[in-house]
Amino acid sequence: MERCRMVFSGSGGQGVITAAIILAEAAVLYEDLIAVQSQSYGPEARGGSTRTDVIIADSEIYFPKVTQPNVLVCLTQEAYNKFHPIIRPGGSLITDTRFVKTERRVDARQIELAMFQAVMESIGKPIVFNICMLGAVIAITGLVRPESIIRVLETRIPPSFLEMNQKALDLGITIAQNLGSQS
Amino acid sequence: MERCRMVFSGSGGQGVITAAIILAEAAVLYEDLIAVQSQSYGPEARGGSTRTDVIIADSEIYFPKVTQPNVLVCLTQEAYNKFHPIIRPGGSLITDTRFVKTERRVDARQIELAMFQAVMESIGKPIVFNICMLGAVIAITGLVRPESIIRVLETRIPPSFLEMNQKALDLGITIAQNLGSQS
Repeated sequence: MERCRMVFSGSGGQGVITAAIILAEAAVLYEDLIAVQSQSYGPEARGGSTRTDVIIADSEIYFPKVTQPNVLVCLTQEAYNKFHPIIRPGGSLITDTRFVKTERRVDARQIELAMFQAVMESIGKPIVFNICMLGAVIAITGLVRPESIIRVLETRIPPSFLEMNQKALDLGITIAQNLGSQS
Repeated sequence: MERCRMVFSGSGGQGVITAAIILAEAAVLYEDLIAVQSQSYGPEARGGSTRTDVIIADSEIYFPKVTQPNVLVCLTQEAYNKFHPIIRPGGSLITDTRFVKTERRVDARQIELAMFQAVMESIGKPIVFNICMLGAVIAITGLVRPESIIRVLETRIPPSFLEMNQKALDLGITIAQNLGSQS
């Protein structure tokens, strides 16, 4: 397995940090992998963009920050404008159609997904937008099985919220898979 | 300002990662500092200990992991047994009296606080144990003002839970300050 370097970006409150922590925990606890997850907050954090880095690998990770991600997720226009140049050539740049217009050219696969719209139409709760995004990421990367994400969620959220999160995860997986069958 | 390297450790569910994220956000957004916060998950994470690293500084941070923390918090015996040797000489090793017996000698200030007991007696909700711990950490380090932590909490938790969190933060500050006046 090659190591997968990811950056999730968006605005505070969209839950990108939580999504990154859940992914890292799932990889380690239920997939026998190694993961590092971090956030840096510098003067730029005061601008309102949130960025979190996750590296997943099957061997030791020496440096925890990501310079050129294989997978870059941008959930706001500001995050997209700022971070799109760091995508690794040949990587996957995932954006949400509701929040981002992808006007820049990158040497990567541009994957525009209507995740927010689907969450609002099917579930009606923006709070699980990040879990839908996580579903798309695991479908695109094949890094972690959906049931491993669910097992982490079971330890983190009240049982009454689990069904909604499961639905959001499945939605993200379906959206990403449908994209594959269209292109 | 010298940079402050911290490690918070405990078991999953005690909220040490959340506490670290709140501290880092407060330092950056309301104290004009720079922060890096990370977790590594390796084979050892499957053992049940959670560890998160936070570095707070007033100038750029080049390497985000902590080797020898100035402040080490251990909220379980397992975390204490595992991590106590990494304390920086002259640093502060903070443990909770309910969960940790400090049998090892370290070249550091050993600070044993009855945080869990105080939270249960005054508030009755273990969920704010991590915020009480954060109160003790900011009282001991003087890194971040209580109101900066509160401002971050206001963006993260529902208004109805804010009072309980404020109480837990104040409790941690008081416990750490009382310790100072006794010694």
